[in-house]
Order: sequence, then C-alpha cells, then structure tokens
Amino acid sequence: MPMVRKVNLAEAFASFTETWSPRIAGEINEMHLKLVKFEGEFVWHHHEREDELFLVVGGRLRMELRDRDPIVVEAGEFVIVPRGMEHRPVAEIPSEVVLIEPRTTRNTGNLENERTVHEPGSMI
Amino acid sequence: MPMVRKVNLAEAFASFTETWSPRIAGEINEMHLKLVKFEGEFVWHHHEREDELFLVVGGRLRMELRDRDPIVVEAGEFVIVPRGMEHRPVAEIPSEVVLIEPRTTRNTGNLENERTVHEPGSMI
Repeated sequence: MPMVRKVNLAEAFASFTETWSPRIAGEINEMHLKLVKFEGEFVWHHHEREDELFLVVGGRLRMELRDRDPIVVEAGEFVIVPRGMEHRPVAEIPSEVVLIEPRTTRNTGNLENERTVHEPGSMI
Repeated sequence: MPMVRKVNLAEAFASFTETWSPRIAGEINEMHLKLVKFEGEFVWHHHEREDELFLVVGGRLRMELRDRDPIVVEAGEFVIVPRGMEHRPVAEIPSEVVLIEPRTTRNTGNLENERTVHEPGSMI
C-alpha cells in the first residue's frame, strides 16, 4: 500500500537552507509540489508548456512579468504564471514558496545556465 | 494576453460561506486549485485515477483512511491522498482547505449522491 503522511510546511522549510533549489515534497498525478527558498533576483525565463503556481508561505515575492506591471505576492497569497509568459521572481527578503507545476518543469525554463537545477532533491 | 492576478487566500475564503462546495480558484495545466470549507463529516469515497492534495489553511482536518490510522492535518499542513485510496475528510471545527487535483476530479469520487457537486463554481 502506498505511504500516506502529512507534511508540515514550517518544519519542511526549516529542514534546509539552500536558496533557488526546489525540493520535491509531494506528487499529485503529473504534478510536483516543490518547496523553494528565494532570496534576491532570479533570471528572466519562461516555460513552453507548463503553468506554474507560486504560493508564498513566508516573506514576499515580486513576480516581474515582461510588458506588464509586477505582482507583489505576500504570505498567504498565490499567483499562477501561465505557460509561455516571460517572468522573473524577485525576493527582496528571504522567502519561502510552495511551487505546483508539472513534473517536466525545469526551474530556469527555456534557459540552461548555472542556475539550472537538473535533478531537484526530494523530501519524499 | 492571458490575465494574471494574485489570489489572497484569506480574502477568497471570506467571500463565501457554503460548506462542501469546492470553488475553482486557479488552473495549472490539467489541475484545478479549489477552495472548500469543511464542517462535519463527508462521505467515504475514492477517486479511481486522481491523487488529491488537501492543504489546510484554517481549522483542522481529520483524514480518515480505510484500514489505516487517521491523519490529523492542522493549519499549515498538507496531505496527499493517492488515487484508489478510500478516504473520508472530517472537520470537527469549521475548516478552510485548498485542494489541488486533476480537473476531472468529482468531489464524491466513485459515488453519485446528494453531496455530489457536478459543476464546481469558479472564482476566476
């Protein structure tokens, strides 16, 4: 029988310190739930086929969007960036974010660079 | 261009009172993010093909699982019930829950009864 256990978000975020390195904390059909710590600016990128949900648990995220106003996402708020849309997450303070996205999602989307995480760590 | 806006969970939950009636508040590829208020006992059911994530935002959920110990999920915690697993959510206090599940998911799973919601309302 498959294992079923709950995840406490505060405890899970307290278990690692690395930033910009998503950890898989759950699987829902073709989706992954990942936990990630943001601090500073990420790179502009997009995902060809994947929508991406950012739920802010702690801190604050400024989601910059090409040719649009940025969206400031506070703790207890989420935003979904649709596939194809160029975006750049910026965290002016250390922030804890839950991502929900297809398993195929690469953190740097269309880019391959030193920020790319090829094999996200797993907490499950 | 597609619309992008953030959702504040507290405000979204404050915008309705009905229990056991999931509202669609986001779409991520083949998944829906739904908001639902639980109070009391639901029905035992399972989903043939769909995993189902329950993230408790307020209150407390007791996820009863056939032939296993129940899992008590507090605010700030989530549990994923895998497809095929018989379960029954029980909320002894009024509770606010974020669901992430495939679009095809029916709230009563394999059952069709008076608790079935055929067309979940949408907040988007």
